[in-house]
Amino acid sequence: MSGAGISRRRLFGLGAAGVAGVAAVGAGAVAGRSLIEEPVAHAATASDPVPFYGPHQAGVTTPAQDRLHFVAFDVITKEKAELVELLQEWTAAAARMTQGKDAGTFGAVGGSPEAPPDDTGEALGLPASGLTLTVGFGPSLFDGRFGLAGRKPPALADLPAFPGEDLQPEISGGDICVQACAHDPQVAVHAIRNLARIGFGKVSVRYSQLGFGRTSSTSRSQATPRNLMGFKDGTNNLKLEDTAMLRDHLWVASGDGPAWMDGGTYLVTRKIRMHVETWDRAPLAEQEAIFGRDKGKGAPLTGHGEFDPPDFAKKGPDGTPVIAGNAHVRLAHPDAHGGARLLRRGYNFVDGSDGLGRLDAGLFFMAYQRDPRKQFVPIQRMLSQKDALNEYIKHVSSGLFACPPGVVDGGDYWGRTLFA
Amino acid sequence: MSGAGISRRRLFGLGAAGVAGVAAVGAGAVAGRSLIEEPVAHAATASDPVPFYGPHQAGVTTPAQDRLHFVAFDVITKEKAELVELLQEWTAAAARMTQGKDAGTFGAVGGSPEAPPDDTGEALGLPASGLTLTVGFGPSLFDGRFGLAGRKPPALADLPAFPGEDLQPEISGGDICVQACAHDPQVAVHAIRNLARIGFGKVSVRYSQLGFGRTSSTSRSQATPRNLMGFKDGTNNLKLEDTAMLRDHLWVASGDGPAWMDGGTYLVTRKIRMHVETWDRAPLAEQEAIFGRDKGKGAPLTGHGEFDPPDFAKKGPDGTPVIAGNAHVRLAHPDAHGGARLLRRGYNFVDGSDGLGRLDAGLFFMAYQRDPRKQFVPIQRMLSQKDALNEYIKHVSSGLFACPPGVVDGGDYWGRTLFA
Ligand code: HEM
Ligand code: HEM
Repeated sequence: MSGAGISRRRLFGLGAAGVAGVAAVGAGAVAGRSLIEEPVAHAATASDPVPFYGPHQAGVTTPAQDRLHFVAFDVITKEKAELVELLQEWTAAAARMTQGKDAGTFGAVGGSPEAPPDDTGEALGLPASGLTLTVGFGPSLFDGRFGLAGRKPPALADLPAFPGEDLQPEISGGDICVQACAHDPQVAVHAIRNLARIGFGKVSVRYSQLGFGRTSSTSRSQATPRNLMGFKDGTNNLKLEDTAMLRDHLWVASGDGPAWMDGGTYLVTRKIRMHVETWDRAPLAEQEAIFGRDKGKGAPLTGHGEFDPPDFAKKGPDGTPVIAGNAHVRLAHPDAHGGARLLRRGYNFVDGSDGLGRLDAGLFFMAYQRDPRKQFVPIQRMLSQKDALNEYIKHVSSGLFACPPGVVDGGDYWGRTLFA
Repeated sequence: MSGAGISRRRLFGLGAAGVAGVAAVGAGAVAGRSLIEEPVAHAATASDPVPFYGPHQAGVTTPAQDRLHFVAFDVITKEKAELVELLQEWTAAAARMTQGKDAGTFGAVGGSPEAPPDDTGEALGLPASGLTLTVGFGPSLFDGRFGLAGRKPPALADLPAFPGEDLQPEISGGDICVQACAHDPQVAVHAIRNLARIGFGKVSVRYSQLGFGRTSSTSRSQATPRNLMGFKDGTNNLKLEDTAMLRDHLWVASGDGPAWMDGGTYLVTRKIRMHVETWDRAPLAEQEAIFGRDKGKGAPLTGHGEFDPPDFAKKGPDGTPVIAGNAHVRLAHPDAHGGARLLRRGYNFVDGSDGLGRLDAGLFFMAYQRDPRKQFVPIQRMLSQKDALNEYIKHVSSGLFACPPGVVDGGDYWGRTLFA
């Protein structure tokens, strides 16, 4: 992989966490671990641009930025050529915006004041802020409209129904998704809005979701943030330094399925509403038993430090396991799934309140993986049946997307391996 | 005012804009103006605590932080004593949270693991991040339930209906509002959530709104941000350095109405949806004519620099005014309203999309003033009738609140002058 066309970078000290990382988690909390070399693009400081070109898309192992704007589009054009042209225009715009460049001027295309400005303008003067744009194709894109049925990867099979979920179709699915992550929400919002503007008449926005406050770490250079239940989230996540595990659990390898996905990855999104008011009245001991970790440090109930491995066999004085049989980390742990792991990259959301006096808040769960049939599906099947957390959450949306490999250079475009 | 109990502070250089200001607007853009002395609380850097005690509430002239969580509560208890007790508990929590302090431990009240934690915990370890909490009382609180009808200020008269508005009652009004502003959204969300938790059984959340990206400056130390229409917003705003104008246009003076509001101010909130997709297709020349300012620098169409005063009399070669008769800045300008001004302190919002493929986005407008009958109402009456902007916006919610004077010390509480 190191010879695959982008230069190796070595980060020192705070590096990737940078200013925003410190501001978000408190200076004292940043783990001082040194980083190993890893050929995936990431910005050295919060406002530096993240490289756009590379064998894999940015925005997956890129140290999770603090803000999200996620969008799912329906394709409305019936012309494959028009869709390809749009993907090319989008790629050019993404290459530009992720490097912190505006369309050039406020001026109109061609310079005429009678034309609309060629950029919506609300991010003019803002730095790149670590913006990444990551594209994915949903199962519905392969329904035959564009002659792609034969190219649908078996791993992109629709997710099964899970007990307890209450999915709203209007905020689920989508033909194409784009994940915009940045340290400044205005930058993430601006990027999606400009893609929607460019796609006018060819795609329409099916739904979009703002997220604030990453709920995971994807690099050992980052401190673990807290989710809206107040627990550290991301401790035992796949991280960019775990090169061998990324190969086994994250990136699609040659022979896994159709060759156009080689070097790609699959994204599962789940909007998970939390009943925060009920949670806030649950005893601390119950909250900790549900996760199997303590709330303060994030240590497993069988250990002392956040990164101590949990001891699932350990029993308490009363003979029952210290980490309960229905604790979230026991059920989600690789040990329970033949070693399967996810790269979780979710965000908190608060969409105001729900008209019944409750915050409409929770986790916009996003997880990247090599094959959802072997990773997300079995993990979520077990969680949906047994997880003690289920009393406090409800899955309300679902999305599944095949994220193609990275754009290698200026002549390449999003989805070329699929369409060309 | 300088003898009113809090020490004078002098800010030098970047001072109030601090790290977050620079990150948000690009270092080169921060205006290098020096600040005059002003006895209202504001933090010296982005993560420093803003003083809580003072003659006026913080969060009004405090240099606008970058994130908002606004909540409106309905009071459900029927006992005045319970409401007063809640206001006292809230004040103590606000004094603590704005100084970046957690409830103490994750532990439960009294230390028992059987009790719920005394803080929801998701902001543990985060700095104060410039958090301010500002309280206001809506007209409905004076409906007689608590014997307050005789204390209702005449300035708190319900707003009239305006042409073109489409107000949704479930996101309008409210007995009590709290505006939480901070540089970190997790800190703002945490604060409101803890107030809601403390108020359980006595108040219920009527609605709440997240805002990102301030759309105004309230200090000359801040660069002017851009709103979601891509225009600089806040140029000709009331600012904390305008001491004489704040006295005339912002703070309620003795004799204005009931004495309990002396040193207070009135807040008007309007959730204003923008038709961003249509806007993004409007020619640049039209966009600039609508506001009467240019999009790049924010200069009036009759001038060159952002802060040049507009020349409303100036005519173009064709004999028509350079700043059109229906331009937003002409109609909103103090000249059109006998000198009336507002302190605008609004935020961008993006609430996902609307199910019709459009971003559910716009401006959560908030303006503070001495008397809405003489400020917001006449300005909005004229705007609602003539503003060229109306083609691209829709007012969907409305709120009006009497914000009492500041909490002077640890023995004081939110609303003491009203209830005691
Ligand atoms: C609102 C819903 C959820 C919350 C609040 C939540 C929270 C947490 C927390 C606090 C941890 C422990 C710290 C860590 O290792 O990151 C954790 C671990 C984990 N979660 Fe979740 N989670 C949620 C949903 C899910 C879902 C839907 C999945 C996948 C189907 C999942 C998969 C995992 C995995 C794989 C781990 C690591 C377990 C280990 O190896 O120790 N979580 N989660
Ligand atoms: C989505 C709705 C709105 C947008 C996008 C908007 C945007 C702007 C912009 C770009 C400016 C010029 C820069 C500045 O001086 O701040 C401005 C000025 C102003 N706006 Fe608005 N505005 C909106 C609604 C309102 C409303 C509802 C009011 C009050 C009823 C209002 C009152 C003002 C005032 C008083 C000024 C200053 C005018 C001057 O003295 O030059 N605006 N607005």
